[in-house]
Amino acid sequence: MKRYLISFAYDATNYHGYQKQPNLKTVQSEIERALFEINNNKKVIIHSASRTDKGVHALDQKAHFDLDVTITPYKLKRALNSKLPNDIHINNAEEVNNDFHARYLAIKKEYVYILNMGEYNPIERNIVYQYNKKLDTEEIKKAIKYFEGEHDFISFVSAEDKKDNNIRTIYETSVKVLNDKLYIRFVGSGFLKYQVRNMVGTLIEVGSGKRKKEDIASIFKAKDRRKAGKTAKPEGLYLSKVFYK
Amino acid sequence: MKRYLISFAYDATNYHGYQKQPNLKTVQSEIERALFEINNNKKVIIHSASRTDKGVHALDQKAHFDLDVTITPYKLKRALNSKLPNDIHINNAEEVNNDFHARYLAIKKEYVYILNMGEYNPIERNIVYQYNKKLDTEEIKKAIKYFEGEHDFISFVSAEDKKDNNIRTIYETSVKVLNDKLYIRFVGSGFLKYQVRNMVGTLIEVGSGKRKKEDIASIFKAKDRRKAGKTAKPEGLYLSKVFYK
Repeated sequence: MKRYLISFAYDATNYHGYQKQPNLKTVQSEIERALFEINNNKKVIIHSASRTDKGVHALDQKAHFDLDVTITPYKLKRALNSKLPNDIHINNAEEVNNDFHARYLAIKKEYVYILNMGEYNPIERNIVYQYNKKLDTEEIKKAIKYFEGEHDFISFVSAEDKKDNNIRTIYETSVKVLNDKLYIRFVGSGFLKYQVRNMVGTLIEVGSGKRKKEDIASIFKAKDRRKAGKTAKPEGLYLSKVFYK
Repeated sequence: MKRYLISFAYDATNYHGYQKQPNLKTVQSEIERALFEINNNKKVIIHSASRTDKGVHALDQKAHFDLDVTITPYKLKRALNSKLPNDIHINNAEEVNNDFHARYLAIKKEYVYILNMGEYNPIERNIVYQYNKKLDTEEIKKAIKYFEGEHDFISFVSAEDKKDNNIRTIYETSVKVLNDKLYIRFVGSGFLKYQVRNMVGTLIEVGSGKRKKEDIASIFKAKDRRKAGKTAKPEGLYLSKVFYK
């Protein structure tokens, strides 16, 4: 038995999210179906770094799994890509130690949110959030700094998904404007369900003048999801990197 | 009766090209269907600057048409966008003189071809050609210069679509590399069927070392479609601008 780590990209448009669900087409179930064939029709369960929500894309998601058959990483990548639909792509495969774990050993993750402030773009409708209005990006650049550091993110977590410990650390943020597009980037120790989309939704409200950037400090203090902004649409969000030691 | 000019963008992925065809879903038929409703159920025929092929996208296509009803350009844009599917979008509408013609009065058109030389990207699979191999972009930059100026483009026209006069002028070209993507741009007086894709296909063969850039001069001289490169895939091509006096 050998353990493998794959990195992969997907267009989430036609899936019910990453995680396996009965009778629904998900990214995980597509990859497990392909691995089942490669593994001589023996079931394979994959463990991903992140379970992205419905509509959220990945540029470089990671997952590990064990195979009974012996196959070189190069051939594994090729075999998987030949069996996967064209909206999922394996970027890389490698052999790892038997105690490697794609989720538990991830030390940082990077998410990028892309938003179009210009005219509606039909060509990018599923891969860039079509906000289609101007935003005060200078205010957003200042506001995002409030998220940096260690915080209890309970006000930015979906109510049904609170954990015992909602403390996470955001190591790095950036906001870039290119043509009419806004790129909002977070690098953190880990992210709770809807956390990135709720932070982005709050930043959009700052950029549209609906809120002040200082509100973010009060939202943290309130420890109340209802104080934060609306959850931003999923199609603008990308899991872009997962870091290991 | 008033004449209107619209500019519009579309994702061609789910259409059988721009031009109306019996029993097929095309961009033209979608817009005419929406205009039929706006025009009190009277048929409207639209005349576009260009008839893009199946799979070829547009960022700013133009078309004119006449309406019996009186409607402000602002309301016309809104009404059309509310009736059109989300992969076609009207960028602008304006009133024009009754002798305006979107095709005959177009003096220049710009096409851009986008090609990914890096790892296959599932997120952009329908909107960027996934070549997924390195190309010698410096050679392509030199080769594209052969296309500039006035030429008989008969060697770059699909055989079944030759016209009496295949002389066209290319005013401007550019080749840009950004990350792993190549952007090939042509501005010309007009383009024949498959001309841009055949020029791009020839440039790809130069960039991959299969041909020399000087071959382009011989291809022009031969006046023979079989001498030019393979037709590049449609999904990388965009009609990006149409110019009027």
